[in-house]
Amino acid sequence: MDDGDARMKARVTVMLKDGVLDPQGEAIRHALGTLGFQGVAGVRQGKVIELDLDEGASEDKVAEMCERLLANTVIESYRVEMV
Amino acid sequence: MDDGDARMKARVTVMLKDGVLDPQGEAIRHALGTLGFQGVAGVRQGKVIELDLDEGASEDKVAEMCERLLANTVIESYRVEMV
Repeated sequence: MDDGDARMKARVTVMLKDGVLDPQGEAIRHALGTLGFQGVAGVRQGKVIELDLDEGASEDKVAEMCERLLANTVIESYRVEMV
Repeated sequence: MDDGDARMKARVTVMLKDGVLDPQGEAIRHALGTLGFQGVAGVRQGKVIELDLDEGASEDKVAEMCERLLANTVIESYRVEMV
């Protein structure tokens, strides 16, 4: 049973593009200030999606998943890492 | 104006701990199958939080932010990278 060896992992990070308002990030920045943390100039929040893939999956295939489902490319950018 | 030089960036990744049910990840896995993507064995979704910090901020300080606000350490684990 070394079925586990036949797996790959991809990590997709999806962030709002620069210039797109990020109210969640802004709320975190404000909350950190309220808790007494100084020196936080800005916060952006995004998503990270970890995919367990069968062997042979390509970065191109994961990019296609991003384009079709994982990211809204009008307002979000994504980054794919195979890990 | 090289105020930008005096900035640091921290990236915090917050994921549900293993064993904690992840309905968002499960929904993504199902949707990828519906779209015809084969070979996706599992999906976990988490958050990524990018912090713009004034110079001198330490990883310890960011870890404290995670403990107090950014992660629910009962069900979530976090990872801090200074970038």
